Amino acid sequence: MNSSIVVIESIDKMIEWSQNERTKGNKIAFVPTMGYFHRGHLALMEMASHLGDKVVVSIFVNPTQFGPNEDLDKYPRDLKRDIDLAKSVGVDCIFFPNSKYMYPEGFQTWIEVEGVSKGLCGDKRPGHFRGVATVVLKLFNIVQPHVAVFGQKDFQQLKVIERMVQDLNLPVKIKSHPVVREKDGLAMSSRNTYLSSDERKSALCLFKALELAKKLHQTGIKNAKEIKKEMEKLIHSTPNTRIDYIFIGDSTTLKETEDCPSGTLIALAVWVGNTRLIDNTIL
Amino acid sequence: MNSSIVVIESIDKMIEWSQNERTKGNKIAFVPTMGYFHRGHLALMEMASHLGDKVVVSIFVNPTQFGPNEDLDKYPRDLKRDIDLAKSVGVDCIFFPNSKYMYPEGFQTWIEVEGVSKGLCGDKRPGHFRGVATVVLKLFNIVQPHVAVFGQKDFQQLKVIERMVQDLNLPVKIKSHPVVREKDGLAMSSRNTYLSSDERKSALCLFKALELAKKLHQTGIKNAKEIKKEMEKLIHSTPNTRIDYIFIGDSTTLKETEDCPSGTLIALAVWVGNTRLIDNTIL
Repeated sequence: MNSSIVVIESIDKMIEWSQNERTKGNKIAFVPTMGYFHRGHLALMEMASHLGDKVVVSIFVNPTQFGPNEDLDKYPRDLKRDIDLAKSVGVDCIFFPNSKYMYPEGFQTWIEVEGVSKGLCGDKRPGHFRGVATVVLKLFNIVQPHVAVFGQKDFQQLKVIERMVQDLNLPVKIKSHPVVREKDGLAMSSRNTYLSSDERKSALCLFKALELAKKLHQTGIKNAKEIKKEMEKLIHSTPNTRIDYIFIGDSTTLKETEDCPSGTLIALAVWVGNTRLIDNTIL
Repeated sequence: MNSSIVVIESIDKMIEWSQNERTKGNKIAFVPTMGYFHRGHLALMEMASHLGDKVVVSIFVNPTQFGPNEDLDKYPRDLKRDIDLAKSVGVDCIFFPNSKYMYPEGFQTWIEVEGVSKGLCGDKRPGHFRGVATVVLKLFNIVQPHVAVFGQKDFQQLKVIERMVQDLNLPVKIKSHPVVREKDGLAMSSRNTYLSSDERKSALCLFKALELAKKLHQTGIKNAKEIKKEMEKLIHSTPNTRIDYIFIGDSTTLKETEDCPSGTLIALAVWVGNTRLIDNTIL
């Protein structure tokens, strides 16, 4: 538990804070977020506190990872609440930069992670992972962490970041945390706040479809198409839903496979009303 | 003058060497090169030795910045000679990585600097600046320099790097060194070794065209088209030459201009026989 927490808005001051901590020999653990914390975020922060001497959490609703018709403007925000929650799990510093300074006029440099950005959410949200990789690299250069923690709920994002770190020789270790769920199984997401009470019920179909897939796999069904068909059936029978994609394939290359050996990734995105939810599991 | 010089091939060992120097409080000045040193390279190294406590020079003929029909295979190489030359100007460490480890199987992450990579060499060598920006970012992450020195001869490259450093909040200062020339004015380049003695004479047309442009500008001609026409005339009258481009425009945005206020960039690329040479000046 940490009684004091620093909130830094300036990029230069953040660099200075981190530089100062590094000079003192402190190991910095970093959790990049878009804010509006739920238990999933707090679990990442708690994990970070075991990995480093100082925990930095960034809150930045990154415009460059939203498509033109996506929910950038309505994305939920509550800085005061976030600060209190972060404080409650011992976070030392919140970095809360302004978009004007993260992307000043004339900004023109982008990170493209080619292979693992394709398929899944990459195909459905063009430019999304370019925006994610670019902002994460910027945040790494500003916060200068020794280790950074990402949630496995955004599985493809995790793979994009891991690949970027490896390819660009970034001096930071990436750690990941399993999906944190509500009691009934729904994966925690800031976007769950968009759901009406009926939609909240329907939203459980993602988890249910993943559980069904696991059960089928356990009973000996190893054919991806067959598993996918059963998942589709389950979701189609749920009101207010529309499948965006169901992916079954290799968890490293993110290429689809026909068979489902142990370690296979199943990931899906489903529209529930006007809210797009994602979830995944490893068989 | 430095009597000992370290040559490091391993990426991990280079990171360790730099980390060690940083921990000791030493400031690292870095000169990324493709080797086959001439006086231009040595001038960058000498500049670096005034900017840092330790000078690191990388020698890496970066395959990703060469096009499929370019001179990657015949690019001149002589490590032994390079080590001796670097030693003579007090370089502390040469980083000489292997392409297999810089770009291992599955490599897929690229840096795109959009605006300033367009036009000039960017249009003539598609993918060139993507390769340059990517390898320079990798080298920065491995060598961890406080400051890096680039030559102004590759003016567009300098602008791409400056833009990348600014946009990605990289913790490194970029310094540049003026074009270093042979006695008669030919800009130093490793590619000058490709020239036959007749071509060597023709190669002077780049410098002559730039001098002509300056003279015209001084006499009051401020129209870019007019200046370009006179430069073209001069080069066309030189045997064995073919103009790749002549650019007259803004030295920051690298956009062409009609007028030539003071500070205007004139840059050109000319084929002399089978060798493509570049040069530039600021009015």
